[in-house]
Amino acid sequence: MRPSGRKLSEMRPISIEVGVMKHAEGSCLIKMGETHVLCSATIEDKAPPFLKNTGLGWVTAEYGMLPRATNSRTRREAAAGKQSGRTQEIQRLIGRSLRAGVDRSALGERQIVIDCDVIQADGGTRCASITGGWVALKLAVDKLLKAGVIVSDPMIDHVAAVSCGIYAGQPVLDLDYAEDSTAGTDGNFILTGRGRMIEVQMSAEGATFSREEMGELLDLAEAGCTALVQAQKAALGL
Amino acid sequence: MRPSGRKLSEMRPISIEVGVMKHAEGSCLIKMGETHVLCSATIEDKAPPFLKNTGLGWVTAEYGMLPRATNSRTRREAAAGKQSGRTQEIQRLIGRSLRAGVDRSALGERQIVIDCDVIQADGGTRCASITGGWVALKLAVDKLLKAGVIVSDPMIDHVAAVSCGIYAGQPVLDLDYAEDSTAGTDGNFILTGRGRMIEVQMSAEGATFSREEMGELLDLAEAGCTALVQAQKAALGL
Amino acid sequence: MRPSGRKLSEMRPISIEVGVMKHAEGSCLIKMGETHVLCSATIEDKAPPFLKNTGLGWVTAEYGMLPRATNSRTRREAAAGKQSGRTQEIQRLIGRSLRAGVDRSALGERQIVIDCDVIQADGGTRCASITGGWVALKLAVDKLLKAGVIVSDPMIDHVAAVSCGIYAGQPVLDLDYAEDSTAGTDGNFILTGRGRMIEVQMSAEGATFSREEMGELLDLAEAGCTALVQAQKAALGL
Amino acid sequence: MRPSGRKLSEMRPISIEVGVMKHAEGSCLIKMGETHVLCSATIEDKAPPFLKNTGLGWVTAEYGMLPRATNSRTRREAAAGKQSGRTQEIQRLIGRSLRAGVDRSALGERQIVIDCDVIQADGGTRCASITGGWVALKLAVDKLLKAGVIVSDPMIDHVAAVSCGIYAGQPVLDLDYAEDSTAGTDGNFILTGRGRMIEVQMSAEGATFSREEMGELLDLAEAGCTALVQAQKAALGL
Amino acid sequence: MRPSGRKLSEMRPISIEVGVMKHAEGSCLIKMGETHVLCSATIEDKAPPFLKNTGLGWVTAEYGMLPRATNSRTRREAAAGKQSGRTQEIQRLIGRSLRAGVDRSALGERQIVIDCDVIQADGGTRCASITGGWVALKLAVDKLLKAGVIVSDPMIDHVAAVSCGIYAGQPVLDLDYAEDSTAGTDGNFILTGRGRMIEVQMSAEGATFSREEMGELLDLAEAGCTALVQAQKAALGL
Amino acid sequence: MRPSGRKLSEMRPISIEVGVMKHAEGSCLIKMGETHVLCSATIEDKAPPFLKNTGLGWVTAEYGMLPRATNSRTRREAAAGKQSGRTQEIQRLIGRSLRAGVDRSALGERQIVIDCDVIQADGGTRCASITGGWVALKLAVDKLLKAGVIVSDPMIDHVAAVSCGIYAGQPVLDLDYAEDSTAGTDGNFILTGRGRMIEVQMSAEGATFSREEMGELLDLAEAGCTALVQAQKAALGL
Repeated sequence: MRPSGRKLSEMRPISIEVGVMKHAEGSCLIKMGETHVLCSATIEDKAPPFLKNTGLGWVTAEYGMLPRATNSRTRREAAAGKQSGRTQEIQRLIGRSLRAGVDRSALGERQIVIDCDVIQADGGTRCASITGGWVALKLAVDKLLKAGVIVSDPMIDHVAAVSCGIYAGQPVLDLDYAEDSTAGTDGNFILTGRGRMIEVQMSAEGATFSREEMGELLDLAEAGCTALVQAQKAALGL
Repeated sequence: MRPSGRKLSEMRPISIEVGVMKHAEGSCLIKMGETHVLCSATIEDKAPPFLKNTGLGWVTAEYGMLPRATNSRTRREAAAGKQSGRTQEIQRLIGRSLRAGVDRSALGERQIVIDCDVIQADGGTRCASITGGWVALKLAVDKLLKAGVIVSDPMIDHVAAVSCGIYAGQPVLDLDYAEDSTAGTDGNFILTGRGRMIEVQMSAEGATFSREEMGELLDLAEAGCTALVQAQKAALGL
Repeated sequence: MRPSGRKLSEMRPISIEVGVMKHAEGSCLIKMGETHVLCSATIEDKAPPFLKNTGLGWVTAEYGMLPRATNSRTRREAAAGKQSGRTQEIQRLIGRSLRAGVDRSALGERQIVIDCDVIQADGGTRCASITGGWVALKLAVDKLLKAGVIVSDPMIDHVAAVSCGIYAGQPVLDLDYAEDSTAGTDGNFILTGRGRMIEVQMSAEGATFSREEMGELLDLAEAGCTALVQAQKAALGL
Repeated sequence: MRPSGRKLSEMRPISIEVGVMKHAEGSCLIKMGETHVLCSATIEDKAPPFLKNTGLGWVTAEYGMLPRATNSRTRREAAAGKQSGRTQEIQRLIGRSLRAGVDRSALGERQIVIDCDVIQADGGTRCASITGGWVALKLAVDKLLKAGVIVSDPMIDHVAAVSCGIYAGQPVLDLDYAEDSTAGTDGNFILTGRGRMIEVQMSAEGATFSREEMGELLDLAEAGCTALVQAQKAALGL
Repeated sequence: MRPSGRKLSEMRPISIEVGVMKHAEGSCLIKMGETHVLCSATIEDKAPPFLKNTGLGWVTAEYGMLPRATNSRTRREAAAGKQSGRTQEIQRLIGRSLRAGVDRSALGERQIVIDCDVIQADGGTRCASITGGWVALKLAVDKLLKAGVIVSDPMIDHVAAVSCGIYAGQPVLDLDYAEDSTAGTDGNFILTGRGRMIEVQMSAEGATFSREEMGELLDLAEAGCTALVQAQKAALGL
Repeated sequence: MRPSGRKLSEMRPISIEVGVMKHAEGSCLIKMGETHVLCSATIEDKAPPFLKNTGLGWVTAEYGMLPRATNSRTRREAAAGKQSGRTQEIQRLIGRSLRAGVDRSALGERQIVIDCDVIQADGGTRCASITGGWVALKLAVDKLLKAGVIVSDPMIDHVAAVSCGIYAGQPVLDLDYAEDSTAGTDGNFILTGRGRMIEVQMSAEGATFSREEMGELLDLAEAGCTALVQAQKAALGL
C-alpha cells in the first residue's frame, strides 16, 4: 500500500501549462502531483567557447529550489555562496538528457539555457525538470524555426523522465517524497518518445538489488514515460 | 503619457493570492501588474544569537529572482557564488520594514524568515516583496496565535510599499519597468496602515529634485499604500 | 540634551585636509569630529565595458573600514572573503551620489574611482565619505583639466551629505555614534551646492515617523550641507 | 578492434598494493592498466552530526586528481577555489557505494573517510577508486576489530566497480580513455561480491541505447566485477 | 649612488606617533620616509581554541593596504574576495616575529591582534609593520599591567625589522621602492633589542649571492635595528 | 641524540626516480626518508600576460598535499575552498627558487609549471619539492632542446634545498618531523650547484638565535646541498 493510496503502477496527476513566463523564449509550469517546477528556455546567440567554429550548438540547464519549496526551509544557495553537489549533479543530468534529443548541428552555433526552478517539492523534482524542460526547449526551438533563424528542425524526439523504486518490497512508479525518502532502491529513467533509453541511474543507498528487480522497474518506467510524452504533446497541441 | 496608458496616479492591478505554498507557515503570490513575487514565511524556534535571553524575536528576509524573471536572462546568484550588492540591499530593506510593524517582545524569542522570490519582473519588485511579505508574515503569526504559542498579537499595523518617481517631468505612481529604467528621480515609500512612514528612499541617478517634487511624490505614495492595505485586507478576509 | 552637549542644530567640527596621499590623483582626510575618513581618487583610462563607445565617463566608489576603526574590533572583510551587505550598500550610495554632480559626457570615456577608507568611526561615515570623496574627485578632475586631457569642466555642482535623526524625541543634526545607535529614526541627506536633493534615505528601525518630522529633518539637513559645502570650498581654496 | 588491442571482454591488468601510506589506517595503490589511484582510509572518532545518538556510523569519500594525472594539465581545484561538479558527483558515488557494503550499526558512531587521489588517469578513475577504496576501508575496519574497538565485523560484502560501454558499435569491458572519450553509451556498474547490484549508471551523451544493449553491458560488468573481487582478495591475502 | 641620494648605510627618517586611534588598546602611526603604516592592538579575552587550558596567550597579526597606497591602484582584497598569498605571507611573518618577543605564559590565555594597515607605500612595509606593531603591542600590554589583569610583564625584548639588499652591486640599508623593485638580492631582518636574530629572509629573484654578501647585509641590519629600537623607546618615553 | 639516531650532519636516504608520470613532460618521485613528493613539469606554449612581448619565459610552481600524507588527516584544500597561507607561501618559494636557476631569455616566451604533490610527509616537504622540482624542470627543458624548440640551454645551474635547525641545543641537518615540530630555530637553505645562495629563511618561533649559530647551520646546508646535487645528477645520468 502506497502512502498516497495510488496503485503500484499509477502516476500522479500530470499538468503542464505553457507560456507562464512572459520574458522567456519558451516556458512551462509542470506539476507532478504536489511537485511543481517552473521551466524556462533562453536562447543565446553564442555557443560556449569550446564549440567555436564547430557549427554545433549546445543545450545546458540550471536547477534551483526556492528555500521553502521543502517541508523544512532549505538554505538559499546564493546565500551559502555555492551550489551544492546535489544541485550540480542534477543540472548536469538535465542538460545531458535534453542534448540527447537534439541534433546540435541543426541547432547551429547557439546555446539554449533551460532554467528549472522548483516552486514546491514532493519527490521527483529532477524528473519533472527534464520533462518540463523539454517542453520549454521545444517552444524556444519552434520560435527559432518560425523566425527562420534555423531552417531544419533540431528536435529529434521527445525526452521524458520518471523515477521508479522498490518501496516496501514492491516496485512502484513515480515516487513521491514519502516513498522516495524510505525506498531502499530507486532510480531515474530518461527515455525518448520512441522508448529508447538516454540515461538510467539506479542506486541502492545501504541496500542492493537484483537484475530481476531492475527489469521490473524498467517496465514501469517505459509505461510512465509514455504517459509523460502524451502530456507533453497535449500541452503543446501536437 | 505613461507607456502603459495609465493615469499619473493610477496603480497597476493588484492581486494577492494566499496559501500558494503548501509547506510554508504563511505564503502568498502577489502580482502588481506583470510583476509577480512568491512570498513565504518560515517560523524558526530560535532567534538569532545576538537576541539570546532578551525575550525579543526577529523578522528577517531573503530576496531572489529567477534567472528568466527579467527580459534578458540574469545570471543565477547561486552559480555566481554570491548575492549581489543589490540583492543584499533589497533584502535588508524588506526585513527592516517588516520589523517596524511587529512588536518583537510579543513575538518572543523566535525568528520568522520571509522569502521573496520574483517569478516575473516588471519594476517595483522590492515594494511588491514588502507588501506581499507582510501578508505571509501575518498568516504565520496567526498560526502561532491560533496554536497558543504566543498569546498577544505582535502585529502592530499593516506595512505596505510603493514606488513613485518623476517620469517625463511628471510625478507618477507605481512605476513599471519602462518607467523605472528612464525616470530621473524615483523613490520607494514604505508606510503603515495608519499612514505613518517607515522608510523613504528617494534617489536621483544623474539628476536632482526639489522639496516640492518630494512632497508630490509623498502624496502619491500615501494614496498608493492605502490601496495596497485594502488589498492585503481583502486577501486575508479582514 | 545630546550626549556631546551639542545644540540640536550644531554640527561637529569639520576638517578637510587635502593632498594627504602622495600617489593619488586627488586625496583628502576628512574629519567630522571623531569620524575620520581617508578619501582618494584614481583616474583610469578606460570606462567600464557597458559604456564602451558611448562617450560617457563613470565615477564609482569603494568603501572600507580599518578593523579597529570601531570600538570593538570588526572582522577584516578581506579575511572574511567578502564585502558585507552594509559595505556594498554604502559604496553604491557614494558612487551614485557623486555621479549626480558630474557631467559624464564632459568627463569622457574614463573612470574615476573614489576610495573611502574609515580610519576612525564615530557615526556618519557614509556622509563623511561622500563629502570628502567629492573633494578628492574635484582634485582629480582639476588635474585632467590642467593637463588638457579634458577641456570642459565636468563638475556641475558640489555634493555634500549629512545625517539627521530623531534623538530622544527631538530632531538633531549630524548624529554621532552615541546618538546614531539609539535614534528611532534617522536619515542621510545628500544635497548639491545649490540645495537640490540627490538622495534622501529616511529609515525607522522599529519605529515610524510623520511628514512633519520629515520636514524638520530636511530643514536641518539643508543647513548642514551648506556648512559642508563651505568647508569643501575652504579646503580647496575656492 | 579496441585501441589497446584487447578483446571485447578483456580487462586491463589489475594491481592492488596495500600499505603504501604509512600514516593511514588503511591504504592501497590500485592500478587498472595506466589508471593509478592512491586510496587511504582515515578513522574518525565521531560520526557526522546528523547521526548523533543513533548508534550508526558513516563512510564518506573524497576524490581528487593531481593536475598532471591527465594528458593536458588540469587546473588544481584548490587553486580554482572549489571542487567541480564532476568531482562532487564522483565522491558522492564512491561514498554511497561503499556504504552499501557496510553494516553501519556494527561500525558504531564513528566515521571512516576514504580519500581517493588519482595519480595517473587513463579512464575509469571512479571505478578504480571504489574498488581500491573498498580495500582501504577493509584494512581500517580490520584494525578496529583487532584493537577490540568494535566486536562484530561491519563488512557485509565486497564492493567493486567497472565501466562498460558501446564502443564502435560493440559492447566492451573496462574502457580506457581512448574508448571512453568516443563511446556513445557508457556506464558504471557497482556490484557486491555476491553479484548483487548497488548502483547502475548508464548514460548516452548525444545518443540512445536499447534494453538489449543494456543487458549485454550488465553481463560484461558481472564478469568484470568477479575478477576485481578476486584481485581484492589476493591483495588482502583472503 | 642611491636614487634618494642616501648613503649606503643611511636609513630614511623614522617617525613613530603613538595613540592615533582612539578605540584601540594600543596604536601608532609609523613612518619610514614615505612608507606610512597605521598599527593597532586589540586585546581579546579568549585565546585561540588550540591553546585552551594551556595557560598560554597568543599574538597574531593582520596586514592590509589601502588601494591607493601604491603608485597605481591595487585592487581591494575585500572586493577580490580573498587575501593574496603575499598578504598572508606578510601577516604570518608579523605575528611570528612579535611572538618571539613575548612570554606567552605571562600573557595568560588571551589574544592580542595587531592590525597593520599601510596608508602609503614606498618599500619596506612589512618591516615597518613589525617595528610599529611592536609599539602598539607594548602599549596594549602596559594597559593590561596597569589594570592588574596580568601581573608580570610578558614583554621580553624589543622587536624591530629592517630590509637590506644589494643595489647596483652595493649593500644598502632600508630599501625604498625604487631600490626594492630593482635589487637582485634583498632580505628582511628581524632582530631583538639585544641584537639576537628572530628571522632572516634573504632572497635572490633571478640571481644568487655569496656568504660574504650575506655577512655585509647582516652588519647593516644590526645597525638599522639599533636605530629603530631607539625610535621605539623615544616614542614610548622609555 | 636525534630521534632517528642519525648523526648531527647526517641526511636521510635520498632517492629520486624519474619518469614516473607518463603524461608529464618531466617528472620524478623524490624521497627524503619518509617524505615522498611527486614532481611533474608541464610546458605551456604561452608565458603569463605580464611577459607578453618581452621574450622572457617563466617558471612557476604549485604545491599540494594529499589529505592523509600527514599523521592526522588534513582537510582537503579543494573542499575548504582555498589554498592556505602556508601552501601559497611554499609554492611561491618553489617557483622563485627554480627561476633563479634558469636563463629566462633562453627559455623564450613560454611557461613551465612545476606541480609538487606530497604523497607522504615527514618534515622538509618544501625542500624536497624544490630539489625534485628541479629534476622535473630539467627533464622538460631537455625535451624542448631535443625537439629543437629552443636552441640554447636555459638551465644555468642545479638548484637544491635542505632544512637545518637547532634541535635540543645542537645544529642538525635535514630535519624530520619529530625534530621540525620541536626545534626552536630552523631554516630552509636553497643553493645552486656551485654553492651560491638563492634563498635563506631562518626563523625562530618563540626563540632567537645568534650569528654564530647561523654560520653553523649554513655550513651544514652547504654539505647537504652538495649531496642533493649529486643525487640529482645520478638520477638524470649526468
